[in-house]
Amino acid sequence: MAKTFHQPLGGNQMPRFGGPATMMRLPSFSSAQGLDACFVGVPFDIGTSNRSGARFGPRQIRAESCLIRPYNMATRAAPFDSLSVADIGDVAINTFNLAKSIAIIEKAYDEILGHGCKPMTLGGDHTIALPILRALKRKYGPVGMVHVDAHADINDSMFGEPIAHGTPFRRAVDEGLLDGKRVAQIGLRATGYAAEDFDWPRAQGFRVVQAEECWHKSLTPLMAEVRAQLGSGPVYLSFDIDGLDPSSAPGTGTPEIGGFSTAEAQRMIRGLADLDLVGGDVVEVAPPFDPSGNTALVGATMMFEILCVLAPAVRRRSDARRSGQSAGATA
Amino acid sequence: MAKTFHQPLGGNQMPRFGGPATMMRLPSFSSAQGLDACFVGVPFDIGTSNRSGARFGPRQIRAESCLIRPYNMATRAAPFDSLSVADIGDVAINTFNLAKSIAIIEKAYDEILGHGCKPMTLGGDHTIALPILRALKRKYGPVGMVHVDAHADINDSMFGEPIAHGTPFRRAVDEGLLDGKRVAQIGLRATGYAAEDFDWPRAQGFRVVQAEECWHKSLTPLMAEVRAQLGSGPVYLSFDIDGLDPSSAPGTGTPEIGGFSTAEAQRMIRGLADLDLVGGDVVEVAPPFDPSGNTALVGATMMFEILCVLAPAVRRRSDARRSGQSAGATA
Amino acid sequence: MAKTFHQPLGGNQMPRFGGPATMMRLPSFSSAQGLDACFVGVPFDIGTSNRSGARFGPRQIRAESCLIRPYNMATRAAPFDSLSVADIGDVAINTFNLAKSIAIIEKAYDEILGHGCKPMTLGGDHTIALPILRALKRKYGPVGMVHVDAHADINDSMFGEPIAHGTPFRRAVDEGLLDGKRVAQIGLRATGYAAEDFDWPRAQGFRVVQAEECWHKSLTPLMAEVRAQLGSGPVYLSFDIDGLDPSSAPGTGTPEIGGFSTAEAQRMIRGLADLDLVGGDVVEVAPPFDPSGNTALVGATMMFEILCVLAPAVRRRSDARRSGQSAGATA
Amino acid sequence: MAKTFHQPLGGNQMPRFGGPATMMRLPSFSSAQGLDACFVGVPFDIGTSNRSGARFGPRQIRAESCLIRPYNMATRAAPFDSLSVADIGDVAINTFNLAKSIAIIEKAYDEILGHGCKPMTLGGDHTIALPILRALKRKYGPVGMVHVDAHADINDSMFGEPIAHGTPFRRAVDEGLLDGKRVAQIGLRATGYAAEDFDWPRAQGFRVVQAEECWHKSLTPLMAEVRAQLGSGPVYLSFDIDGLDPSSAPGTGTPEIGGFSTAEAQRMIRGLADLDLVGGDVVEVAPPFDPSGNTALVGATMMFEILCVLAPAVRRRSDARRSGQSAGATA
Amino acid sequence: MAKTFHQPLGGNQMPRFGGPATMMRLPSFSSAQGLDACFVGVPFDIGTSNRSGARFGPRQIRAESCLIRPYNMATRAAPFDSLSVADIGDVAINTFNLAKSIAIIEKAYDEILGHGCKPMTLGGDHTIALPILRALKRKYGPVGMVHVDAHADINDSMFGEPIAHGTPFRRAVDEGLLDGKRVAQIGLRATGYAAEDFDWPRAQGFRVVQAEECWHKSLTPLMAEVRAQLGSGPVYLSFDIDGLDPSSAPGTGTPEIGGFSTAEAQRMIRGLADLDLVGGDVVEVAPPFDPSGNTALVGATMMFEILCVLAPAVRRRSDARRSGQSAGATA
Amino acid sequence: MAKTFHQPLGGNQMPRFGGPATMMRLPSFSSAQGLDACFVGVPFDIGTSNRSGARFGPRQIRAESCLIRPYNMATRAAPFDSLSVADIGDVAINTFNLAKSIAIIEKAYDEILGHGCKPMTLGGDHTIALPILRALKRKYGPVGMVHVDAHADINDSMFGEPIAHGTPFRRAVDEGLLDGKRVAQIGLRATGYAAEDFDWPRAQGFRVVQAEECWHKSLTPLMAEVRAQLGSGPVYLSFDIDGLDPSSAPGTGTPEIGGFSTAEAQRMIRGLADLDLVGGDVVEVAPPFDPSGNTALVGATMMFEILCVLAPAVRRRSDARRSGQSAGATA
Repeated sequence: MAKTFHQPLGGNQMPRFGGPATMMRLPSFSSAQGLDACFVGVPFDIGTSNRSGARFGPRQIRAESCLIRPYNMATRAAPFDSLSVADIGDVAINTFNLAKSIAIIEKAYDEILGHGCKPMTLGGDHTIALPILRALKRKYGPVGMVHVDAHADINDSMFGEPIAHGTPFRRAVDEGLLDGKRVAQIGLRATGYAAEDFDWPRAQGFRVVQAEECWHKSLTPLMAEVRAQLGSGPVYLSFDIDGLDPSSAPGTGTPEIGGFSTAEAQRMIRGLADLDLVGGDVVEVAPPFDPSGNTALVGATMMFEILCVLAPAVRRRSDARRSGQSAGATA
Repeated sequence: MAKTFHQPLGGNQMPRFGGPATMMRLPSFSSAQGLDACFVGVPFDIGTSNRSGARFGPRQIRAESCLIRPYNMATRAAPFDSLSVADIGDVAINTFNLAKSIAIIEKAYDEILGHGCKPMTLGGDHTIALPILRALKRKYGPVGMVHVDAHADINDSMFGEPIAHGTPFRRAVDEGLLDGKRVAQIGLRATGYAAEDFDWPRAQGFRVVQAEECWHKSLTPLMAEVRAQLGSGPVYLSFDIDGLDPSSAPGTGTPEIGGFSTAEAQRMIRGLADLDLVGGDVVEVAPPFDPSGNTALVGATMMFEILCVLAPAVRRRSDARRSGQSAGATA
Repeated sequence: MAKTFHQPLGGNQMPRFGGPATMMRLPSFSSAQGLDACFVGVPFDIGTSNRSGARFGPRQIRAESCLIRPYNMATRAAPFDSLSVADIGDVAINTFNLAKSIAIIEKAYDEILGHGCKPMTLGGDHTIALPILRALKRKYGPVGMVHVDAHADINDSMFGEPIAHGTPFRRAVDEGLLDGKRVAQIGLRATGYAAEDFDWPRAQGFRVVQAEECWHKSLTPLMAEVRAQLGSGPVYLSFDIDGLDPSSAPGTGTPEIGGFSTAEAQRMIRGLADLDLVGGDVVEVAPPFDPSGNTALVGATMMFEILCVLAPAVRRRSDARRSGQSAGATA
Repeated sequence: MAKTFHQPLGGNQMPRFGGPATMMRLPSFSSAQGLDACFVGVPFDIGTSNRSGARFGPRQIRAESCLIRPYNMATRAAPFDSLSVADIGDVAINTFNLAKSIAIIEKAYDEILGHGCKPMTLGGDHTIALPILRALKRKYGPVGMVHVDAHADINDSMFGEPIAHGTPFRRAVDEGLLDGKRVAQIGLRATGYAAEDFDWPRAQGFRVVQAEECWHKSLTPLMAEVRAQLGSGPVYLSFDIDGLDPSSAPGTGTPEIGGFSTAEAQRMIRGLADLDLVGGDVVEVAPPFDPSGNTALVGATMMFEILCVLAPAVRRRSDARRSGQSAGATA
Repeated sequence: MAKTFHQPLGGNQMPRFGGPATMMRLPSFSSAQGLDACFVGVPFDIGTSNRSGARFGPRQIRAESCLIRPYNMATRAAPFDSLSVADIGDVAINTFNLAKSIAIIEKAYDEILGHGCKPMTLGGDHTIALPILRALKRKYGPVGMVHVDAHADINDSMFGEPIAHGTPFRRAVDEGLLDGKRVAQIGLRATGYAAEDFDWPRAQGFRVVQAEECWHKSLTPLMAEVRAQLGSGPVYLSFDIDGLDPSSAPGTGTPEIGGFSTAEAQRMIRGLADLDLVGGDVVEVAPPFDPSGNTALVGATMMFEILCVLAPAVRRRSDARRSGQSAGATA
Repeated sequence: MAKTFHQPLGGNQMPRFGGPATMMRLPSFSSAQGLDACFVGVPFDIGTSNRSGARFGPRQIRAESCLIRPYNMATRAAPFDSLSVADIGDVAINTFNLAKSIAIIEKAYDEILGHGCKPMTLGGDHTIALPILRALKRKYGPVGMVHVDAHADINDSMFGEPIAHGTPFRRAVDEGLLDGKRVAQIGLRATGYAAEDFDWPRAQGFRVVQAEECWHKSLTPLMAEVRAQLGSGPVYLSFDIDGLDPSSAPGTGTPEIGGFSTAEAQRMIRGLADLDLVGGDVVEVAPPFDPSGNTALVGATMMFEILCVLAPAVRRRSDARRSGQSAGATA
C-alpha cells in the first residue's frame, strides 16, 4: 500500500494564526498505524519537583509550532517528503496518580512502536522518559541515548519516591533499558547535593559533558565524538528544554543558568545526523512561566530539528529492511 | 439518516489540559454537513482600529474552552443531547486584504448555511459580522439581532473606508440585512465623536440600551422587553467581548469601562431563551492583552451559553418543519 | 503561663516590601504549641484537574500579605489583641504521591489540633480539605461547614480516583466527617456533567446556594439564614478562591464566570461572626496565572477576614471552658 | 484675544496606535499660558510605601488615553468645545529627594494657577496632593475636596516622616489648606492600625463614606448629599485609583479589595457636575503591575470624566467673571 | 542659516521616566525641514503573517528610548553634535487598507527626502521597506542595502498578495530599487518552503550570510567583506529585530531561534561606519509579546547605533557637497 | 564554642515550592552573631533613576533561591560545610528619605562586621554600595573591589544629588573607601554623556574593562590579570545584575544590551577564587519587569557562586588568624 506523505498546512492556504492546533498543523490521527513517525503529547507534570506547568507543554508547543515551515533552510532537510508523519494527540494520563500514569504511557508507546512508528514526544516533565524507554527496550533492546539537560536525572529517589522527574535514568539503568556505553549526557551543570550526581552516570559508562566544557567552544568536535561513541545501534534523543539557558527557554520548571543557546542546541542535534535515531522527546516546557510563548516555540523548533535527523535514520532502516538486513534489535 | 450527537471529550477520559484543542474538545469536521450547529473560527483582525490580536481569538478560545462541561448547572440545558455540533475549523481569510477576506467569509457562511447548520462564530474582530449577516440575509431574509457591545459599530466609515470593525451595522442597514425594528443594541457607552453614534441606530428603529440604564438594576425586565421586541422571526446574536467590563475581559482591543459583569451577560443571554436564534458570535477577544487566558475562557463560556439558547430554537424549527410549517425566510 | 500576643510587623518598623515573608509578617514558629490559631501552608497541587500552580499559593499569599494591617476598619476587629497567632510554616507534603500526602497532612493537623490551636490554612488545591476534615472529626466530631466555591466538589471520583480536588466533600460525607444539616455551599455555578452535582449535596441535607440566587441581591438575609442553619456547634470555613469571580481572582486553576465580588465575599465572611468557627482555609490560589500578585493578596485578605471572625469564636470557647462548659465535641 | 480650542487628534486622521503620546493626543505646550485647563504629569513615586511604579503613571496614562474620543456618550459633554486644553508635559521632580520634589511641584503649580489654568494631574503617588493643595490655597484659599480612595491618607507620619503618600491630608489640615466641612472622603476601607484612621478626619468635619456604605446601593443619593455638603466654593477632586476595586485597577501600589467598580466611579464623578471644580488628579496608577495597560486606560478615562465636570465649572466662573462677580478666593 | 543641533532631554533635567515620549526625548517637529536626520514612525502591521502587534512598535520604542544617552561609550560617537535630528512623529497610515497605506508611506518619504533629510524609521512590520525603498530610488537611484533579518523577505507573493511583510525585497528587485551587487542579507535562517528562499537572492547578486556562518565566529572579518562589497554608493540599512535571537528580542511576530546576540548586532552596525548610509529602519518590534519592554529598548538602542554610523556618512556627504562633488545619484 | 554549620533545607525534606522564604531556605537569625557569613537584604530603590522595583529584589531573590542546592557541581565547592551561614533578614531602611536610609544601612553593616561576619547583600539598587563600603572601610581600611556592571556608577551627582545609584563609587573614591589600584570594573558599556564616565575611573587607577573587550573571548586570561591586579588584600565584589545582558536579566531598572551571559558571569566569579573576599552583593534585580521570576533566580545563583569563592577566603583568614598573622587591615 502506498504511503501518504502528509504536509504541514501551509501559510498560503491558511494564515499561520488559524487552522488546526496540531503539531505543525499536520493532520490529526487517532493511531500511529501507517505512520513512519508521529508527534504525540504526554501532558504530565506530577513528577516535577519545583514549578509545575509542563502539563500545558503539548498544547502550547503545538500552538506555537504553527510558525514552522517544512524545509530546513540550513541543512536542506525536507522530512515530510520521505516520512509519513502526523499528530496522534495526547496520551490520556491519570493526573492524580503517578504510578498509573506510568503504566498508561508504557502501554501507549508499546502500541505506537507496534505500528513500526517512531515516537516524537511533546512533554510533559522528564518522568515520562522512563515508560518510553521501557517500551523502546521491548522493541529494540537496550538503546543508546543522547540526553541534553541541565540535570543528570539519576537520583535514586526523590522524597523517597523511586519515580519522579529526577530519577528516570537511574531507573532506566536499574532496569537495563540503556546501553550505558552508548549514552551521552550533555549540558549538565548547576548545583546539587554531591559529586555523585555526575559521578554515578560516569560509573555506568555514560559520557557526561558538563556545560562548562562547552563554553566558548565549537560543539562540532564534541558531536563527532558523540557520534563515534554511539555508533550504529538504535539511539533515543531526550531533550530537556532546561538544557538550554533560561535566556532562551525561560518557561521551564527548574531553570539553571550557564546553559546552551538555541544555536548550540541546533548544532548538537544536527550533529547527530548519522545516528540510528528511533525516537525523541522535548520535555519540561512549562508555558505559564513564559507569557511570550517563545519557550514553546523553541521546543517546537527543536522537535522539527530532531525530525530532520530522524528522517534519514528511518530511510536507512527502510533501505536495510528492503535489502534483507536487520536494523537494531528488532531483527 | 440518524443524526450523531457529538459530546465534548470529558475530563474523565482525557485530562482537561490535554486532548484536541478544538472547541470544547468536540470532534473536528471539515464541513458543516449533517450538523445542527458548528463552531467556526474567523481569525481576522485587520479591521481593528486600536489594539490588534483578535486573530488569535479562535485559537485561544478553543484552548481555554477545555474547561467547559456539557451541562449548564443553572439552566439545566444539555445542548449536546439535542443538537449535533462539531468544530469545523477556521475560515482561511486573506490577512493582507480586507476586501478579499470579506468575500471569503461570505462564501464560507453561505456554505455552512446551505447545510442547514447554525454558525457559532469565534472571532476575530467585529468586521466579520458584515459578511455573516450577508449570508444570513440570503438564507433567512433580514434578521433581527441582539447586539451586546460597548460600541454601536455604525460609523459610516473609518479613515475613509466603508468596511472596518466600527462600521458593520451601518453597512448592514444600508444593505437591508437587518430588520431594524427587531434589533437591540445593549451596553453601549464610552466616548465618541458626537451624539450621532447612538442617535442614528435609534433612527433605524433599533432599541439602544446604554450601559448606564443597566447599572444597579436587574436585567430581567429589560430582557423581557427585548424578547417582546424581537418576537418570532430569526434572530442573530452578536456578542462583542468589550460589552463586558474590562475587569472581566481585559484582553480586547478597545476596552471601555463601565461595562457588564459576566453574571449580567449570562442573565442577558439566558433571557433570550424563547427567541428564534439562527446563529451567534463572540468577537474581539485579543489574547495578547490577557496573559491569564481568562478573557478567552469568558468568551468560550459565552459561546456555550449561546449554544444553550440556540438548542431549543433549533428544536422548535425542527418541530415546525416536521409539522409542515415554514421557519423564517427559508420557507 | 501568660499567653504571648504576636503582632504583625508594622510598616513603621520595616517597609512593607521588606521583612520576613511569613503570613502578615508574623513570627515564624516550628509548632502550634501555645497558639490559639496558626497560619499553616499546604503547598499541594497534584489533586488539581486543570491548571496547576496552587503549590505556590502559600508562598505568594504570604508575600502579598505584607500589605495587611492588624485592624479591620469596617468591623473594628483586632484579632491579634485577643488571639495568640503565628505562622508555623508549611506541611512537607510528598508532591509525587497523592495518597502519602493526604496521610502527611492528616498527621500534621492532628498535631496542630492536639495543641488546641485553630488551623488557618493557606492552600494548595481543594483536595487538602479532606485530611483537614478528618483531623477535625477526631477532635470535634462531625463539623458544620460553610463552603464558598464555584464547584460542589462532591464527585464520586475523578478519572477513577477517589481522592482529588473535585471529591473532598463526597469523601467527607462517606466518612461521616460532616454534619450534613449544618453544611452550606455558597456560590455554586458553571457547567457540569449532570444535575447530580448540586442535587446530591442537597440530598445530604446541605444548603446549596447557587450563584444565580445571589446576583443583584444583598447577601445579608442569606447569611442570617446560614447562621440559623449552622447554629451552635463547631463550624469549618472552606473558601475556594474560585468562589470569587475571575475578575477578582484570575489566578486560579478552574475559574468560572458569574462569581462573587470581593465585597460580597467580605460580607459573607463577616456574616459568620456568631458561629463557632474552629478553622478555615483559602485554597486554589494559583499564582502563575496572575502576574500582578493580586489574587494572592485577595486570598491573604480573606484569611484575615476569617481570622477576624475566628477571634470571637475562640474567645467564646475560652469563656465557656472557664465556666466549666464543653464546647463542641471536645468535651 | 480669541481662545484656541484644541481637539484631540482623531482616529480618522491618525490611527489610534500612532500619533503623539500626549494626553488624548492633544497638542503639547511648554506652559499653561492661555489654557483653561491643562493635563500635567507628576512622575513621582518615592512617597509610596509598598509597590513602587507610579512614576510611570503619567507616561502610560497618556499612551492608553489614545483610545478616548472627545464626546461623552452618556452625559453628552464635549469639554473641548468650551475649554482650551492641552498637555503641558511633566514636572521635573527630583526623584532622589522627596523634600526638594515637593518644593518643585509647588512652584510648578503656582505657575499653572498663575495663568488662570485648572490643573488636571496625572500622578504619581498620592504625596503630590500636598504641594498641589498648597498652591491651590495660595490661589483660592482653603478648598473643599472630594477624595476617592481606599485610604484616608491622614497618617501623622510614616516611618517617622511627615510627608509621604499616606499623610498628605493630615498635613493639609495642619496647614489650613482644606475647608474641613467641605471635604468628602469616599470609598475608605481595608485594614489599618486603629479606628483613628477614619475617626480623625471625621473630627475635622470631613464626611467619611466607608466603602461598605456603598455596597449594593445606588450612589445617586450619596452624591446629592455630597453636592449639598460642598456647596458653592472651590472644590478639588483627588482620585486615587485604588478607590476602585483591584479587579478594575490591578496596577496600583496598595490595592485593597471591596472597592468601587468603574461604573460606580463614573456615577460619582458625574454626580459632581454642579460643583465649582478647580482641578483634579488621578494618582497611584502603577503600570508595572498591570501588563494589559488597562489600569492606565481606566485612569485616563477617569481624567476625561473629570474634565467633563470641570468644563461647566470653568464656564460658570467665566460667566461670573464677565458679570463682574468674584469666583472663589481669586476675587 | 545656522543649523540647530537638538540634544536629547537629559536625565539631570527631567527624570528618565518623565518628559516627552518622543524618540530619545528629542524635540517633536511636524516636518523634516531643516533636519539632517529624523526619527519617524510607521505604525503599520497589517502586512504581518503571524503575530500582529508591530503597530505599537513606534510608540513603545520611543517610550523605552528614554534610557538612551547621547554619547556612545564604545565608539565615542556623539551624533547629536554633528547632526540636526528630531522626531517628526508617525506616518498616518490607513490601517484597513494595505495598498493605500503603501502609497501614503511613499508620499511621506518623498517629502522627508525632499528636505534632504535622512529617515530613521521605527516600524511597523517589514512591508514598509518597500515604499521607503521606492522613495529612496527616486532620490538616489538604486541603493545598496544591508539587511539584517532571520528571513530573506523575497517571497513572490503571500497568500496570493504581491505586497506583504515577506515580499518587500522581491518587489524591490522587480522594480529596480536595489543595486543587487551591493546588497547583503545577514542572519538568514530557520525553516522555509524550499531552497529558493535563499537561492533567489543569491541569483540577484545579493550576498546571503546564513546565521550558521556566523555562529561562534567574530563578525569583524565578515563586516570588512560587506564594506568592500557595498563600496561607495548610497546604502540603506534595514534591521528586522527578528535578526536577533528571540532571547534578546522576544517581542516580535515571527521569532526564529539561532539568531544574533545584541553584541553581535552592535558589532555589525558599528562595522558599517565607512559606508554612505542614507537611512535606516528597525522593524517588527511587537510590544504585546514582551511585557518587560526590553525588545523595544533593544530596538531603540539599535536605532541609536545606526544613527552613530549615519552621522559620519552625512558629514562626508556634506563635505563632498561643499567641495562641489555630487553625492550618490542625487547629483 | 563549636560553630554550627547550617544547611539549606533540602528538597527531600520539604518540596522546593514550600518551606521558609529565606535565602536558600537557610535558618533565619536576628543578628550576625556567630556567623561567618550572612545573607542580608536591603530593600531600597529610591536611588534609582529609571525603572523602580529593586525594593522587591530581596524578597524575590529569596523566593527563587529555593531551587539552589548546596553543592557546586562545576567547582565542587560546598560552602556550607566550612562556613556558618544564615539569613539575617532585611535592613529596615526609611523608604521616604534617602539620606536617613544611608545612615541606617551603614549602622547595620557596622554591626554585621562587628561580629566578624561577611555580608552577602541582596539589593536593592546600587546606591547601597556606598554605606556598605563605608562600613568596610572602618573594618578593613580601603578595600579592593571587583565591580561587574554596565555602568561605572561614578557620576559626580545625579539631578544635583551627591548620592544616588549612579554615584556610589565616585563618593567612595572621594571618601577614600577604595584602594583605586585594586579596583576592576568589568562589563562597562552602553551610552553616556561623555568619555569622562570611563576615563575618570581610569584616572583613579581602576582597571576598566569595557564589555566590547570581552566579546567573543574567553574570560580566563582576563580573570588572571584581575587576580594579579587585586593581589592579597581585602576585596569586595559588587555585582550589578545589569552587568549581564538583558536576555539573561530582563528584570532590572537600567538594562543595557551587549552584556554578559550567565556563563561568562559564572566564569568571572569563579575566577576570583584566590582573592581575599570580604563580602559581596547582587544589586538592581527589579522583579516587576520579569514575570517569570528568572532574573531573581539568576541573582540568587550569582550569590551562591560568590559564596563559593567567599568560603575559601574565610578559611584562609581563619587559618591566618590561628597562625598569628594579620589578614587585611583588621590587624
